Amino acid sequence: MSEKAELNAEEALVVFTPSGKRGSFPVGTPVLDAARQLGVDIDSVCGGRGICGRCQVTPSVGDFPKFKMKSKAEHLSEAGAKEARYREKRGMKDDRRLSCSTTIQGDIVVDVPADSQVHKQVVRKRAEVRNIEIDPVVRLHYIEVEEPDMHKPTGDMERVKEALKDQWDIEVTRADLPVMQKLQKALRDGEWKITAAVRYDGELVYVWPGFHGKSYGLAVDVGSTTMSVHLTDLQTGEVVSSVGAMNPQIRFGEDLMSRVSYVMMNPGGEQEMMKAVRETLNFLAGQAATEAGIDLTDILEMVLVGNPIMHHLILGINPVELGWAPFALATNGSVTVWASELDVSVNPGARAYFLPCVAGHVGADAASVVLAEGPQYRDEVTLVVDVGTNAEIVLGNKERLLACSSPTGPALEGAQISSGQRAAAGAIERVRIDPETLEPRFRVIGAGSWSDEEMFEQETARTGVTGICGSGIIEVLAEMFLAGILSADGIIDGSMAAKTDRIVPEGRTFSYILHRGEPEIRVTQADVRAIQLAKGALYAGAQLLVDRLGKPVERVVLAGAFGSHIDAKYAMVLGLIPDCKLDMVASVGNAAGTGARIALLNRGARYEIEKLVAEIEKIETAVEAKFQDHFVESMAFPHKTAPYPNLKEAVKMPEPKVLSDSDGGDDGEGGGRRRRRRRAS
Amino acid sequence: MSEKAELNAEEALVVFTPSGKRGSFPVGTPVLDAARQLGVDIDSVCGGRGICGRCQVTPSVGDFPKFKMKSKAEHLSEAGAKEARYREKRGMKDDRRLSCSTTIQGDIVVDVPADSQVHKQVVRKRAEVRNIEIDPVVRLHYIEVEEPDMHKPTGDMERVKEALKDQWDIEVTRADLPVMQKLQKALRDGEWKITAAVRYDGELVYVWPGFHGKSYGLAVDVGSTTMSVHLTDLQTGEVVSSVGAMNPQIRFGEDLMSRVSYVMMNPGGEQEMMKAVRETLNFLAGQAATEAGIDLTDILEMVLVGNPIMHHLILGINPVELGWAPFALATNGSVTVWASELDVSVNPGARAYFLPCVAGHVGADAASVVLAEGPQYRDEVTLVVDVGTNAEIVLGNKERLLACSSPTGPALEGAQISSGQRAAAGAIERVRIDPETLEPRFRVIGAGSWSDEEMFEQETARTGVTGICGSGIIEVLAEMFLAGILSADGIIDGSMAAKTDRIVPEGRTFSYILHRGEPEIRVTQADVRAIQLAKGALYAGAQLLVDRLGKPVERVVLAGAFGSHIDAKYAMVLGLIPDCKLDMVASVGNAAGTGARIALLNRGARYEIEKLVAEIEKIETAVEAKFQDHFVESMAFPHKTAPYPNLKEAVKMPEPKVLSDSDGGDDGEGGGRRRRRRRAS
Repeated sequence: MSEKAELNAEEALVVFTPSGKRGSFPVGTPVLDAARQLGVDIDSVCGGRGICGRCQVTPSVGDFPKFKMKSKAEHLSEAGAKEARYREKRGMKDDRRLSCSTTIQGDIVVDVPADSQVHKQVVRKRAEVRNIEIDPVVRLHYIEVEEPDMHKPTGDMERVKEALKDQWDIEVTRADLPVMQKLQKALRDGEWKITAAVRYDGELVYVWPGFHGKSYGLAVDVGSTTMSVHLTDLQTGEVVSSVGAMNPQIRFGEDLMSRVSYVMMNPGGEQEMMKAVRETLNFLAGQAATEAGIDLTDILEMVLVGNPIMHHLILGINPVELGWAPFALATNGSVTVWASELDVSVNPGARAYFLPCVAGHVGADAASVVLAEGPQYRDEVTLVVDVGTNAEIVLGNKERLLACSSPTGPALEGAQISSGQRAAAGAIERVRIDPETLEPRFRVIGAGSWSDEEMFEQETARTGVTGICGSGIIEVLAEMFLAGILSADGIIDGSMAAKTDRIVPEGRTFSYILHRGEPEIRVTQADVRAIQLAKGALYAGAQLLVDRLGKPVERVVLAGAFGSHIDAKYAMVLGLIPDCKLDMVASVGNAAGTGARIALLNRGARYEIEKLVAEIEKIETAVEAKFQDHFVESMAFPHKTAPYPNLKEAVKMPEPKVLSDSDGGDDGEGGGRRRRRRRAS
Repeated sequence: MSEKAELNAEEALVVFTPSGKRGSFPVGTPVLDAARQLGVDIDSVCGGRGICGRCQVTPSVGDFPKFKMKSKAEHLSEAGAKEARYREKRGMKDDRRLSCSTTIQGDIVVDVPADSQVHKQVVRKRAEVRNIEIDPVVRLHYIEVEEPDMHKPTGDMERVKEALKDQWDIEVTRADLPVMQKLQKALRDGEWKITAAVRYDGELVYVWPGFHGKSYGLAVDVGSTTMSVHLTDLQTGEVVSSVGAMNPQIRFGEDLMSRVSYVMMNPGGEQEMMKAVRETLNFLAGQAATEAGIDLTDILEMVLVGNPIMHHLILGINPVELGWAPFALATNGSVTVWASELDVSVNPGARAYFLPCVAGHVGADAASVVLAEGPQYRDEVTLVVDVGTNAEIVLGNKERLLACSSPTGPALEGAQISSGQRAAAGAIERVRIDPETLEPRFRVIGAGSWSDEEMFEQETARTGVTGICGSGIIEVLAEMFLAGILSADGIIDGSMAAKTDRIVPEGRTFSYILHRGEPEIRVTQADVRAIQLAKGALYAGAQLLVDRLGKPVERVVLAGAFGSHIDAKYAMVLGLIPDCKLDMVASVGNAAGTGARIALLNRGARYEIEKLVAEIEKIETAVEAKFQDHFVESMAFPHKTAPYPNLKEAVKMPEPKVLSDSDGGDDGEGGGRRRRRRRAS
């Protein structure tokens, strides 16, 4: 074939790599046209006019015996005016060529680099998760529009539609009003060349005069405590800026249920909270754009995730029904609205997409974690836990997925703990207790040294030691348990006061002094109870799913801020998570945010998660009789009955010690009240 | 079959009239079910629950030889509790039955009255136009929704969708955000029974708790001078209130082109005008609802018509492109937006639909007139003229339609006339001039007598005689022409001053004193020139279409306020319209408003006019060389060359008189300038 091409000056063989697609084309055919005819995936926004630079390729020169040809640089046309102008104005690597402006002059091997493909992949760092294929819901298309003519009085919009049909084979089904309002000026300012932003369903959402090559989206995770916004390039998948803020609704109630109570007590309170969260969201959108140095109108899409109450409050839906049985969502499907309907000032044509909610207490954030982690693609049974005021729990593998939520309360985040605080500089995050002396040492956020090291004082001079954060409380309790200070049934052992003056009586119970100073930081019996209630609820929820699935947990994924700082070993020592191989526990950080970014970049992912969420089996812990039994058994460290063989192999566990617990009833009140409130009707 | 039914107690024959559909059904079958199975068109909003009363039928009792049966009243079940309750609470004619709550007990003839049909017809008064079949874009559906359940945690919205699917076979494709916001309360207030408003494309736009039986729409005609709103029952087609107001944009410019100039001179002026017209629209919507005693949220749809500049200004589109060649519309297709996007406070889910525009100067109002008058269904060639500042002209029949606009200016509406005024009490509207004495007599709006009758003084005591309105100026000029005061080339004949002191010199020309008093009302030479320019433009536009079609006008339809007061004979004497049989000239009033009402009530009418408008051949007068020639010839009364045989048969025309016209150039300035402004680039 190569020889034939050599002989016949009229035809030449082109091979595209890495796809391997090949064909013969008349000499003079633009490389982009050849690629299109062969179905090779090369991007273009300008439609082959040498403006956008998306269609860059690299000639591969040399002998290619497997293709039976010699590929020579001179088998591509020399750079023309368009390519030279592009190279000069926008810059391009030396070996790159614009495939639209380069013609085939002889046999050639052409490499299409990853960044020139329409369906580029965003490679994720962790090997076990799937890459993201870029296929956003909205795309840019540069068009040349016919000028109006007295003899043919069609509207400007109709000629734009015609151009999109002719030049991109796109049928515009509908145009937003702001587009109609700015279309005429854009056409004239751009001298009848514009760039149109068109959604997959044919909605024309924006126009720019001339060529416009940038489009962005916002991946938004609205947590009850913090909100984060990732400004993402819709064409490269790159996160160009990330900003966050406290959820301003905290002033209406620290945890979710107190916010729902606020609405119950203050009719119209949902409007106040909606306003507060939307204002912050709008502020964050602006901040993200400023940090990245982009225009707000370049933001064409938003994806939001959050728990059901956040979901409702952002949408302006009264969340009271989520405060009592049967915890009915206004809608569990995905929701698409205009970003402007959420009072977010980005492009006026931008839409905001909420992932579907799984159930009344298992929100779009859980759906998003599933999308990011993909337990549905795996053989091993994975437990995905997103810890917040409610833990959202998903269990399963490629055969079946189950989900529930469990009312852990905010203790695992450091709230309701006497010396608890948010994870911030000065908070104790790591703890070790000497099993002989019972003396502790610890590390605080913002300092590199342990408290018994020389530099510690200096490093903490500015921040002080202010409290214990979520991961710190897990570690100190686990270490107390391993050192024998804490019994399996969660009693601080007063008899150990003989061994150390750090164990002190406090009313009828005992406390452990972790840090002497200002403030003094203690672990009280009530703190232990709060964690027991939280971890008991978490475990019991997971256990319900295990019961239903009939298969043990083989892998644990801890999502959320809490999970990303926790040490898997200590979590297992306390029985926060079920037993499995320690190296099968992964902390994946803000997986909900990652899922939002996937849904932002890949349209198909939306359908996928919508379909999957409909199939997930939902378990309502409140109506499962066994939940209370599981809960009671799960209060012990690590568990009253579960054997934890993997843990015992990895960690030397103390002799089981069970002390009577005369004050358990009192201390348990907080958790009990919390659960009742959530379930009160 | 009848005998068989008599014998076999299990089956009975039912015949529905007027459709004649018939079938045998088991005794005990509800009449509505039988009707549905036979495809008989019976309405229902409540889905057969005895609430809405839409499915009423009347048993026809007696011998029906043609159906071979005896129909007896007792062959329908007796009234049950539901029917009794409906009859008591809402009232129902004695012979009526609720077909959903009445079962078949034996052979029966059941009449379905017109008001019980889904596809009811609204009968229009004029025999030559088609009735309107009621088939609105949005319908109400009463549903019973499954209550939420802890074991099946679907959202309320999803259960509503399920109910609409199960109970009405409707697939909801999308729900507006306000619906999501109010859904949960509506379901609980209605004890899981709600009424849903669903658009034809499956969009759920509103919900009411319990049964809700009323839905309305607004048919809106936005003229450059006046705006009118007709509040229409979407289920009966009845206009329940009509309100109107001056277009507030008048303060930015009396005629359209001066408003466009305002925007050219004042950047952002389109926003001011948009705001003004939207405020008035919203006010009128409120006023219409108040007059009819209905709630604004019961208004679910709007249809708007107007000329291209009004169309753009309401939508917030800058109209400057319509002020110069090539008069490019932002869009010529139909436009659907939310009513709220136009700042109209009706139901938050209401949409506003604009009919398509025909061309840069032939607007949605012209499309609406075509929809109302239906020249496309007729054999005879019809000329449809909607007179405003620009006349919009459509010519054709079922084979072919052509359209153009012509810059008549506002003279025909009484503007630019020395004693001209709007049609209001005190304005002269009818004039007769004695051909011997040249003495006039006239009638004014608000008085029943002629000026030479006894009661005239008394009847006009309060209003006085204040000026001449549009139809008055046509009559006085026509009568002056018939009396020989006015020459065929439009000169007031100064030599006639010898016969009457009503002809007086004014500079180098003459005037005719129509009324002596305070104010004195004269017809000046400049007035004649203004009307000549206007009517010349109108005729020339029509003639261009006739040239193109190659067929003479057989029928004339005058639309708009001007047309509805004009006397066809006088219009033809002046040559405002081409010659045809006088009884083939119809004044149809606000046909644009009627067209809007048709598009409001019948969904199919929208597709029909969209398709038709695309097919109409558009002629741009500005680029047609022959327009100027036609225009010059059309300045004469009735016309320089056209023979007007039908007119001459009906009216005794004066001997042709042509006088030299030394001042024509000066007097013509106004009109010339106006045309130039419109066409300046």
